[in-house]
Amino acid sequence: MIIPVISIVGRSDTGKTTLIEKLLPELAKRGYRAATIKHDVHGFEIDKEGKDSFRHKRAGARISIISSPEKIAVIKDTGKDSEIDEIAFKFIDDVDLILTEGYKKNNKPKIEVFRKEAYPDLLCSKHDNLLAIASDSKHETSVPQFDINDTAGIADFIEKKFLVKRKKPSVSLEVNGNVVPLKPFIQKMLLNSVNGMVSALKGCRKSKRIVIKVCN
Amino acid sequence: MIIPVISIVGRSDTGKTTLIEKLLPELAKRGYRAATIKHDVHGFEIDKEGKDSFRHKRAGARISIISSPEKIAVIKDTGKDSEIDEIAFKFIDDVDLILTEGYKKNNKPKIEVFRKEAYPDLLCSKHDNLLAIASDSKHETSVPQFDINDTAGIADFIEKKFLVKRKKPSVSLEVNGNVVPLKPFIQKMLLNSVNGMVSALKGCRKSKRIVIKVCN
Repeated sequence: MIIPVISIVGRSDTGKTTLIEKLLPELAKRGYRAATIKHDVHGFEIDKEGKDSFRHKRAGARISIISSPEKIAVIKDTGKDSEIDEIAFKFIDDVDLILTEGYKKNNKPKIEVFRKEAYPDLLCSKHDNLLAIASDSKHETSVPQFDINDTAGIADFIEKKFLVKRKKPSVSLEVNGNVVPLKPFIQKMLLNSVNGMVSALKGCRKSKRIVIKVCN
Repeated sequence: MIIPVISIVGRSDTGKTTLIEKLLPELAKRGYRAATIKHDVHGFEIDKEGKDSFRHKRAGARISIISSPEKIAVIKDTGKDSEIDEIAFKFIDDVDLILTEGYKKNNKPKIEVFRKEAYPDLLCSKHDNLLAIASDSKHETSVPQFDINDTAGIADFIEKKFLVKRKKPSVSLEVNGNVVPLKPFIQKMLLNSVNGMVSALKGCRKSKRIVIKVCN
């Protein structure tokens, strides 16, 4: 199935990271695994100077990876601002939900975090695909409003809207680095063809997840 | 084509990172793009405390990503030590070569870095798929030996052995998270079938790189 994406947006210092920090354990308690994507328009320094992986990157590696028995870290040059769908296709699997921090301009469904001290007006309107508000005050809007500290209520809302639907089989395709939109008929054709081919291989009769890469 | 992998191995403090730091710009100068994988058996802390992505990860995100207009960083829980081929399949594309630092026990071709001050004996033998030695002293061995500072010579060796072959089309398959070994006939079947299907789609007649993901 396509992993649902919800963007947590809002002006600076309204508490976007704090809300995500509270939602993640609440969702985990309910059995959901999440990935997060932070949009950093100013660029970032994640690696520590002097570390081997930092030295590899600085010496010109396009992709620098550290792998340990617990986790893996990847730093990759992109040279462009990546779309959420592209990031999800390339790097995210095996989770139930993606929360993004930022990406106001993307068309994903949004929850706006609002604190009246930070700024007097809302950042988003319904045209921005605004789903709900997490705020310290009341607003004139038709979308559902939650208290900024009502983590359980917001998690209920996300769960009902995105997580309890029946999971349908899905297929996605990337060609030359771009995610290709697929009509339902094409999806079905590709899904059945790939499942048919792979099921003929030894040990692959029941495949939950299949990834095929071709380089021509 | 399958991206060639060379492991730079050696005992502690022999200069593995330094050699990689010198090889990367030398290879870049010759037009080759490289990725690096560092094997850190003790675990690592890459992210900086207090940063939003660090807070996401600590709050329980399985995968935490920061995306900027220049680069992208991904931190992912694995719960196990990943194989080189698995890491390459999931995270690496669009490079000509992968250099690993460490992974002595893996079966990839190896260059051992040696300094007599650090330890009297070589770490690897020919049984370890040892290709060459970069050393400050002479050894009794049948594999080619380079001076530890002869970056151009080592780059020549890598180039001749791994980078000037004709690039052949290739296909790789991952099922339920595991890379599936494919016999040549199956490779051809899968390659032609995928190319055939995708070439029928709008705008996909000439595809250099195709990735298909199926979730059942």
